[in-house]
Amino acid sequence: MSDIPRATPSHPRRLRDVPRWDRETDVAIVGLGGAGGCAAIEAADGGAEVTVFELASAGGGSTAMSSAEIYMGGNGGTRVQQACGFHDDTEDMVTYMMMAAGPQADEAKIRNYCEHSGEHFRWLVDIGVPFKDSFHEERAIMCLTDDGLLYTGSEKAYPFAQQARPCPRGHNLQVEGDNGGPLLMKIIMENLARRDAITVEYETRALALIIDEEGAVVGLVVRQDQNELHVRTRQGVILCAGGFVMNEQMVRKYAPMLAGGNTPIGNPGDTGTGILMGMSVGGAAINMHEGFISLPYYPPADMTRGIVINDKGQRFINEDVYHGRLGAFVLRQMAERIYFIVTVEQYGDYEKVSYLGAPVAGTGETVAELEEELGLRPGSLQYTLAAYNEDCSRGEDTLYHKAAEWLTPLEPPLVALDITPGRGAFVPYFTLGGLDTRPTGEVLNTQGEVVPGLYAAGRTACGVVRRAEGYSSGMSVGDATFSGRLAGRQAADAPRR
Amino acid sequence: MSDIPRATPSHPRRLRDVPRWDRETDVAIVGLGGAGGCAAIEAADGGAEVTVFELASAGGGSTAMSSAEIYMGGNGGTRVQQACGFHDDTEDMVTYMMMAAGPQADEAKIRNYCEHSGEHFRWLVDIGVPFKDSFHEERAIMCLTDDGLLYTGSEKAYPFAQQARPCPRGHNLQVEGDNGGPLLMKIIMENLARRDAITVEYETRALALIIDEEGAVVGLVVRQDQNELHVRTRQGVILCAGGFVMNEQMVRKYAPMLAGGNTPIGNPGDTGTGILMGMSVGGAAINMHEGFISLPYYPPADMTRGIVINDKGQRFINEDVYHGRLGAFVLRQMAERIYFIVTVEQYGDYEKVSYLGAPVAGTGETVAELEEELGLRPGSLQYTLAAYNEDCSRGEDTLYHKAAEWLTPLEPPLVALDITPGRGAFVPYFTLGGLDTRPTGEVLNTQGEVVPGLYAAGRTACGVVRRAEGYSSGMSVGDATFSGRLAGRQAADAPRR
Repeated sequence: MSDIPRATPSHPRRLRDVPRWDRETDVAIVGLGGAGGCAAIEAADGGAEVTVFELASAGGGSTAMSSAEIYMGGNGGTRVQQACGFHDDTEDMVTYMMMAAGPQADEAKIRNYCEHSGEHFRWLVDIGVPFKDSFHEERAIMCLTDDGLLYTGSEKAYPFAQQARPCPRGHNLQVEGDNGGPLLMKIIMENLARRDAITVEYETRALALIIDEEGAVVGLVVRQDQNELHVRTRQGVILCAGGFVMNEQMVRKYAPMLAGGNTPIGNPGDTGTGILMGMSVGGAAINMHEGFISLPYYPPADMTRGIVINDKGQRFINEDVYHGRLGAFVLRQMAERIYFIVTVEQYGDYEKVSYLGAPVAGTGETVAELEEELGLRPGSLQYTLAAYNEDCSRGEDTLYHKAAEWLTPLEPPLVALDITPGRGAFVPYFTLGGLDTRPTGEVLNTQGEVVPGLYAAGRTACGVVRRAEGYSSGMSVGDATFSGRLAGRQAADAPRR
Repeated sequence: MSDIPRATPSHPRRLRDVPRWDRETDVAIVGLGGAGGCAAIEAADGGAEVTVFELASAGGGSTAMSSAEIYMGGNGGTRVQQACGFHDDTEDMVTYMMMAAGPQADEAKIRNYCEHSGEHFRWLVDIGVPFKDSFHEERAIMCLTDDGLLYTGSEKAYPFAQQARPCPRGHNLQVEGDNGGPLLMKIIMENLARRDAITVEYETRALALIIDEEGAVVGLVVRQDQNELHVRTRQGVILCAGGFVMNEQMVRKYAPMLAGGNTPIGNPGDTGTGILMGMSVGGAAINMHEGFISLPYYPPADMTRGIVINDKGQRFINEDVYHGRLGAFVLRQMAERIYFIVTVEQYGDYEKVSYLGAPVAGTGETVAELEEELGLRPGSLQYTLAAYNEDCSRGEDTLYHKAAEWLTPLEPPLVALDITPGRGAFVPYFTLGGLDTRPTGEVLNTQGEVVPGLYAAGRTACGVVRRAEGYSSGMSVGDATFSGRLAGRQAADAPRR
């Protein structure tokens, strides 16, 4: 094969350079995480012969490493929402997700996601995913009980609650501890195993797409046991290879703001291969600069009663938002330090439960003493706290609109945690950019036309989630499983060639 | 030609589909603005035969519409800097430009730009660009006198001045009024006309690149008088077709945050064609989300003595920064209103001179009265102003580090201008994303490899300027002219085929 140009994620192979077909399948799927798994199930159920290529020696991807909360609702409410006494209007869910995605929202994709969310819940239940009809009251980042439902975003917080009626939409698998991800993937893998039409090839690296003279994707080059294999696809290739958070060079090039974080969240295969392969055949990559970046400052939920200030002694956000939204606003401050101010009493719990690991920057028997320890302008935090405490007494945060349930005056002795990124706190991050797709998973080129034969789902696509400041737990696995299904179904419906 | 696949910016034509060569040239240049013009001159002076294709019926591009300040310095100082008594260290210029570009800085490109800035100045003088050895003292957005030098960025402001010794680097052409752009392009066009090796074809639209079997760029399809012409290039194609600010769909897709602006700045040809053509052959587009967005709140320079607050009554920036930096920080606030607070006396000048056009939101004989008119929390602006005025009296802005020269206490009667984007103020914007290139102008693919035969310069490339918050006037025309020259030289040095 020495006369064939090298095939890499950035260099598709031309059909005329394919020496032979080593495999043939209707639909080839790259990557076996939540998206790839659901794509395989739907493609097979749609009548296609499916081959999944997975780099690792087992399926799982980032979904298996996650808590696997799944963001679902609307349509009056899922079975769990209704059993827990919540009615969820589709329009409220659409409004919330549109606000979450902000100016970069893909309305068609969000609307489709919300309108089919009830159906998606039932599909998951049908393939065996267990959800308990119980509500987890406590504000948490992940649910360590087997409760089926919890608030996982900023639904009850300003400015979301003012425009979309709050409803909990984080669906948690019925399993104790932080074990939702492994259980979800176990169920998905069992579903794959039950379908004869699905073959999985592990320890197989996708090298490049194969395109014909018109630029249509007609196959895939993979490497297995050091051999290049040419896979002919009759209906399409679905890229479900995750994001690019583990590709340092790509992060530096495309999402440099994520350098503010210190802990990439993802699996080792999140090297951007799928996105690069899509781009190599004309697919448009969008939202590439965006990522999730967070300071997980709760639990304990009581931390929500604290306030976050910059080095001018100013608050800048309502502290009852989702932690990713806090992270996004922390990065926007022109400040050399960011502090979390809590009472000594609240801090006691923090030490035991928090993941955040932020160092104590100062303590004070009086606010003036704390100001001095932190090097704040004298009077600045005193002004901020006086206004805040006055608002708490009246039960209304007039400046940042933190919900009344979290408003208790902060009285000394106080503790200040240094939550400045780069000063010791845990700042997780992952990417939110990917291939532009139709809601169906069809990959679009830079002029908005479909690249024939190519689909993307999960983090390889740019899905419904677009910004840290609007992120809610469960949106990633929700998007991965849902977009995987749609892409699988769409590919299975494509004419064979 | 009906059997040849359609050629568009997103669909390169294959060499084998080229029916005949209608033109042949060493170097083809797409777009005749500052970048294309300088590329043509250098390519011709490097021994190449050059053909420039321009969509409009005359050269000019966005450079002709600009003030054509040119950001130059370092190397001890240009002739003008030295004559005006300024010594400029290259390292100070590098530090300033690295801070300006932030995490997305391309250090190799910035270093190359700074190290050759003195030489670039001399080259411009050599081709006939006049600069007067005089310094314009007044803080201004553009220089309406014929002075040769002024501060055009945030060099003297926090945090830049603390890390890089301030030096004015905005070089203004010797012409009265805002006429630098037309004069610069006139001189460039005269230089083109003097060179027999350069042909310019106007009213000619670049349709698509032509690539050979290995993906190398070997020509260009253009449309002229409704005919498709195939142009063979022996040495390369240089894309100098501007940015994409006039392509509403691309802005919505790639740079949605620019929706906060209301006045796109650029020429009608800034439709992203050059960037799309580069992407169609594997070129990586980077920094696509970023743009310049501004609230040009000065002149009059005295506006710098005012303060900017959000709807919490808080300041959030030192008001002596470049107006683009203010614009960037305005967009970062979680606030429904942003106000500029000045004294009635300062406001008098504003009405006469400002471009901003911001409506008056309130006035007050006392600060309390103004708070009430603006609907601010009682006491909030009083606290902010008391702290600010105390700092002014002491000559040090302890919170935001506005330079001492601008610190005068703000005493009522006061005026508040509503500078919230979308509420009437002039908010200009343009894009800052483009093709990833080496400092030489060679276009890179997503894996950092050169796309053979393809170059980009000016706004079609992603240059030294990367963010509104670090922008300085003169950086765009500086980058366009300099990067154009380098690309022209590089293409002329390529082996002919």
